[in-house]
Amino acid sequence: MVSLTKNDINNLAQRDRIRLINSIAGVKPVNLLGTKSKAGISNLSIISSVFHLGADPALFGFIIRPDISRRDTLNNLRETPYLTLNHVNEEIITQAHQTSARYDENISEFDACELTEEYLEKYPAPFVKESFIKLAAKFIREIKIEENGTHLIICEIEQIHIPQEYLNKDYSIALEKAKSVGVSGLETYLSLKTLGTLSYAKPDQILKWIKKEEVTN
Amino acid sequence: MVSLTKNDINNLAQRDRIRLINSIAGVKPVNLLGTKSKAGISNLSIISSVFHLGADPALFGFIIRPDISRRDTLNNLRETPYLTLNHVNEEIITQAHQTSARYDENISEFDACELTEEYLEKYPAPFVKESFIKLAAKFIREIKIEENGTHLIICEIEQIHIPQEYLNKDYSIALEKAKSVGVSGLETYLSLKTLGTLSYAKPDQILKWIKKEEVTN
Repeated sequence: MVSLTKNDINNLAQRDRIRLINSIAGVKPVNLLGTKSKAGISNLSIISSVFHLGADPALFGFIIRPDISRRDTLNNLRETPYLTLNHVNEEIITQAHQTSARYDENISEFDACELTEEYLEKYPAPFVKESFIKLAAKFIREIKIEENGTHLIICEIEQIHIPQEYLNKDYSIALEKAKSVGVSGLETYLSLKTLGTLSYAKPDQILKWIKKEEVTN
Repeated sequence: MVSLTKNDINNLAQRDRIRLINSIAGVKPVNLLGTKSKAGISNLSIISSVFHLGADPALFGFIIRPDISRRDTLNNLRETPYLTLNHVNEEIITQAHQTSARYDENISEFDACELTEEYLEKYPAPFVKESFIKLAAKFIREIKIEENGTHLIICEIEQIHIPQEYLNKDYSIALEKAKSVGVSGLETYLSLKTLGTLSYAKPDQILKWIKKEEVTN
């Protein structure tokens, strides 16, 4: 067993500490975040800090660290408060990862990383054509996290687009079937395999594994 | 393709909307959160909203919804600001899921769900013995999210415990090897399989798949 105290963690080489702390809480979702500047230049950045905030209204949050990267994303959201989230799937991992390179603000990562801009239902932010599961959302509010200068971004979901075969009958999403991936730390990608679905837990009641019906309608 | 507008989402049955919005951003990490009340009663709750906030200082955040559940966790943290996060692995999924049942505040989920309380390095919060990868953290601050009454909890990591064979030489964590799982929505568990690790992205440089050295020392 390796046991690290706060002091041990602080004394790690910076790259080691980043790798450890970025992967210590487990697998993370990995999405491409699409925005557009006031001047009309599209931006795409890979993001693994999205978390569920609530279903009614449909809210999620994510973290941006403007001093280090993603400055274009934050600037774009302050100018035009619309964004898309697009699942990274097994077929676009390298293109998605490449969006983390520091391109100039006048370069669109769609062009630089060979991903295709797509517009759905006249939404002002660009979707990723090669992604299967995508949503559009409005930027609602940012909260500065004083402890480290990051910004928490709160967004409300305005559209969801998903191929019918990846939406289960109960409106959950078939992540394995859609080949959506997860990430450990900043650079290790993982595929997902469904182990099963458990029933709603109640005290003094034995859990059951539930069979999902896989196709809507 | 199924396309849902904000209106369509609002009109879904509540359980369907919860399933859809909880799974729309992809796989989530799944941990057991251990706390202790002032009266000395341990609490364990399954949580899938943990996200990375920063590596220096080592911070993470998570969301608590006190009006619906997890009231004991929030009360405990306000009384004794120490917690543990313990990865759910393939062998303890049913016990971990069972902690989401609403037990009375005077019942410890460790007892009710057949998980073993463990104390490491004299930390005041209980770890889960059956979990392989675990950390201790101090509750730093809560931010109320006015949009839906949830609370964002900010924590600083104080200890990390991990069997040597699951810590890579570069201090990233071997999630597949440790059989850590992810969750889609609130009830579908997924195993993780490593696809590979990509090199640091730079403009005009081709990405490489990197081979990890799997054992520390």
